[in-house]
Amino acid sequence: MFDFEFHNPTKIIFGKDKESLIGSELVAAGHRKVLLLYGQKSVQKSGLLDRVRRSLTESGIAGVELGGVVSNPVLSHTRKGVELARQEKVSAILAVGGGSVLDEGKAIAVGALANEDIWRFYSGRAEVRKALPLFTILTIAATGSEMNGNSVITNEETRQKYNIGSPHVYPQVSILNPELTHSVPPDYTAYSAVDAIAHVIEGFFTKEPGTRLQDRLVTAIVRTVMETTDLILADPSHAQARASFMWTATLALNGLTPAGIGPYSFPNHMIEHSLSALYNIPHGAGLSIVIPAWQKWYHYKNPIQFELFAKEVFGLETGSAGIEALEQWFAAIGSPIRLHEAGIPAEDIEKIAANAHDLATLWGIGDLYTRENIAAILRLAA
Amino acid sequence: MFDFEFHNPTKIIFGKDKESLIGSELVAAGHRKVLLLYGQKSVQKSGLLDRVRRSLTESGIAGVELGGVVSNPVLSHTRKGVELARQEKVSAILAVGGGSVLDEGKAIAVGALANEDIWRFYSGRAEVRKALPLFTILTIAATGSEMNGNSVITNEETRQKYNIGSPHVYPQVSILNPELTHSVPPDYTAYSAVDAIAHVIEGFFTKEPGTRLQDRLVTAIVRTVMETTDLILADPSHAQARASFMWTATLALNGLTPAGIGPYSFPNHMIEHSLSALYNIPHGAGLSIVIPAWQKWYHYKNPIQFELFAKEVFGLETGSAGIEALEQWFAAIGSPIRLHEAGIPAEDIEKIAANAHDLATLWGIGDLYTRENIAAILRLAA
Repeated sequence: MFDFEFHNPTKIIFGKDKESLIGSELVAAGHRKVLLLYGQKSVQKSGLLDRVRRSLTESGIAGVELGGVVSNPVLSHTRKGVELARQEKVSAILAVGGGSVLDEGKAIAVGALANEDIWRFYSGRAEVRKALPLFTILTIAATGSEMNGNSVITNEETRQKYNIGSPHVYPQVSILNPELTHSVPPDYTAYSAVDAIAHVIEGFFTKEPGTRLQDRLVTAIVRTVMETTDLILADPSHAQARASFMWTATLALNGLTPAGIGPYSFPNHMIEHSLSALYNIPHGAGLSIVIPAWQKWYHYKNPIQFELFAKEVFGLETGSAGIEALEQWFAAIGSPIRLHEAGIPAEDIEKIAANAHDLATLWGIGDLYTRENIAAILRLAA
Repeated sequence: MFDFEFHNPTKIIFGKDKESLIGSELVAAGHRKVLLLYGQKSVQKSGLLDRVRRSLTESGIAGVELGGVVSNPVLSHTRKGVELARQEKVSAILAVGGGSVLDEGKAIAVGALANEDIWRFYSGRAEVRKALPLFTILTIAATGSEMNGNSVITNEETRQKYNIGSPHVYPQVSILNPELTHSVPPDYTAYSAVDAIAHVIEGFFTKEPGTRLQDRLVTAIVRTVMETTDLILADPSHAQARASFMWTATLALNGLTPAGIGPYSFPNHMIEHSLSALYNIPHGAGLSIVIPAWQKWYHYKNPIQFELFAKEVFGLETGSAGIEALEQWFAAIGSPIRLHEAGIPAEDIEKIAANAHDLATLWGIGDLYTRENIAAILRLAA
C-alpha cells in the first residue's frame, strides 16, 4: 500500500425511471437555468430528452439546449458550448448521454468559468481551478465519466485526443437508469466492455505487485464485466446483466481500484487515443486492438501480475495463456483485435507512434514509450 | 440489482504522518475552534495527541478538549460532550481514536445542533436533520465509522446499545495513518478483523442471491481481512498488512458492498449489541460468538449464498463446511466463539434475547427475530 487520497463526492441515483428526479435534484442544489447538453438522435427518438425537458419544466428550470455532441467529442463543438454557457449565464451543465456527452459537459463546465481557451487545460498549459456544477443522466455504461473527474476531448485540427483530470469536474449528481442502456447495440456493448476492463487493468499491470485487496477488486470487476457482457450479447434486454454491467463500469474508473496501489500508468489508453484521434474509431474498438499487443510486449516486466490475472480471471496457469484468453474473448464479443479490422493500414504505424509519443511525453511516460517502442507494440497488432 | 443511492462524500487522506495535515484541513474548511475528542491514555502515551495539538496550534485553531471516551461509548459521556460543544460554540468536532471515539463524535456533532436530548435520535424518536462537521484521525481499523454515517451509543441506564444512520454524520475528512495501528494488541486486532468481516457478510447472507459483483466485492474484502490478520498476528508491525487491513476495514462499511443488493438486514449486529450492552464485552468478541451460531441457524434460508461463501473464501464445497471454517478461523485468531469464553452465563440467554428482540423490533426484523428464535440462536453459542 502507498499513500493516497480518496475523495469522490458524486451522488449516484441508480434505478428505473430515475431520470424523472433530475428537476428536483437541480432545484435542491439551487439551479434555475442550465445548459442541457446531448448528442445525436437516439436520446430524442427514445423519448428520454422529452422526459428530461418535462422534469425541468415541472421544476421551473430553464434548459438552454445544445445537441450534436459526437462520439470522441471535438474541440470545436465544445467551444460552442462554452460560448453558449457564458452567454446564457447558466449556473450548471446537465449532460444527457454517454461518456462523450459527459466529457464534453465537463469541458464546457470548465470553459464557462475560465478566462482562457478550453484547449489550454487539455494540452497541459493551464490548471483547472473551478467549474460549473455538472449533473448527468447516463445512457451508455462504459467510460465511468459519471463518477470521476476525467474528461477527454479531441482537437480535430491538431489531431490530438487529450484529457484533464480534476476534482472540480466530478459530477454533483449522476442518474443511472440501466433500462436506458438496453438499446445499446452489440458492437457498442462490446466496445464498452473492453473500455471498462481497460480502466481497471491499466493499474493492475503497471503497478508493483503486492496490493492484494486492489488486485481482488480488479478481478471482481473484470469477471463481472465479462459475465454480464456475454449475457447481454445473448439477450440485449437482460435487465439484471445490464444493471450490473452499468454499475460495474462506474466502479471501474471512480478511483476505487487504484487507491493505494502507488505509481501506475495508462499506456493502452495513451496509444489508443492516437488511433481514435487519427481514425475516429470507437475508443473501445481501439483498446481491444492495443491491449493484446501491449500485453505481449510488456508482460515480461511484471510477470507476477500477469500470472495472477490469468489465474483469477481465467483459471489459467501462465501469464501468456491469460493474455491469449483475453484477446480471444475480445474477438468473441466482436471487438477488433488487429489494426486492419478497424481499417487502419500497417503502413501508418510510424505516424501513429509519433502521435502517441507526444501524449506519452505529456503524461511523463515518454522514456519508456519512445516512438520505437510504440511502433513495436503496434506491429504486434498488425 | 435493485435501485439504490450511493453518496459518500468523505475525503480520505491515507498514509504515514498524515495526521499532521489536520490543522490545514480544518483551516481550509473555515474552522477556528473545534472540540477535540479522544479516549483513553494510549493517544497520550503514543504522542499522537501532542502532534494533533501542535498541528492545531500551528494552524491557529483552538482545541477544546474532552478525553475519556470509553469503548462501547456511553450516553452520559456523550451528553457531556454535547454540553461542552454548545457552551464553547465550536464549529466542528475532531475525533481522534478508534470507532468508539468516532461514534461518540458523531453523536456530539448531532447533539450540538439539536434542541432535544441526543438519545431521542438513537432510540428512533427523532430524525437527524443537521450536525456539526466531523473530522477524524483513526487509530484502530475496525468499525468503518471513518467513512460512513453510522454511530452506535450505549445507554448505560437502560442497557440499550442503539444506533443512528444519517447522511449528516459522514466525516468530512478522515485521516488514516496505518502506523498508528501498529500498537493495537493481538486480541483487539482479532476483534477488529471479526468486525470488518461481519460488516460485509450481513448483507451477503441476508440478501437475495444474484448480485455477483457485490458478492465478489464481499469475498475480496473477507479474503483480504483474513490474510492480513494472519500476517499481523505473526508480526504486529507488518506495515503492508496493517495498511491493507486498515483500508479494507474502511471499505467494508462505506456503502460500497450493499449498493444495489436490495433488502438485507444486520441480525448478527442486532444480537451482539445486546451482548456488549449487557456485559460490556468488545463488539468484535461478541460478533465472533454470535456469527457461527446465527449461521448454523440461518443457512437453510439462503443456501446459495452460503455455498458461494464456502467456495470463494475457503475453496470448500458446502455451506456447512464454510460455516465451520469461519468459526475455526475466529478461534484460531483468538476471538471467542462461545458465550462462556466471554464470561456470559448460558442462564442469561432469555434475558439477552429479550434485550435483542427490542432492537429487532426497532429495526423492523422482530417478526423473524422473536425472543424464541434469538434464544435458539444463542443456545447454539452456549
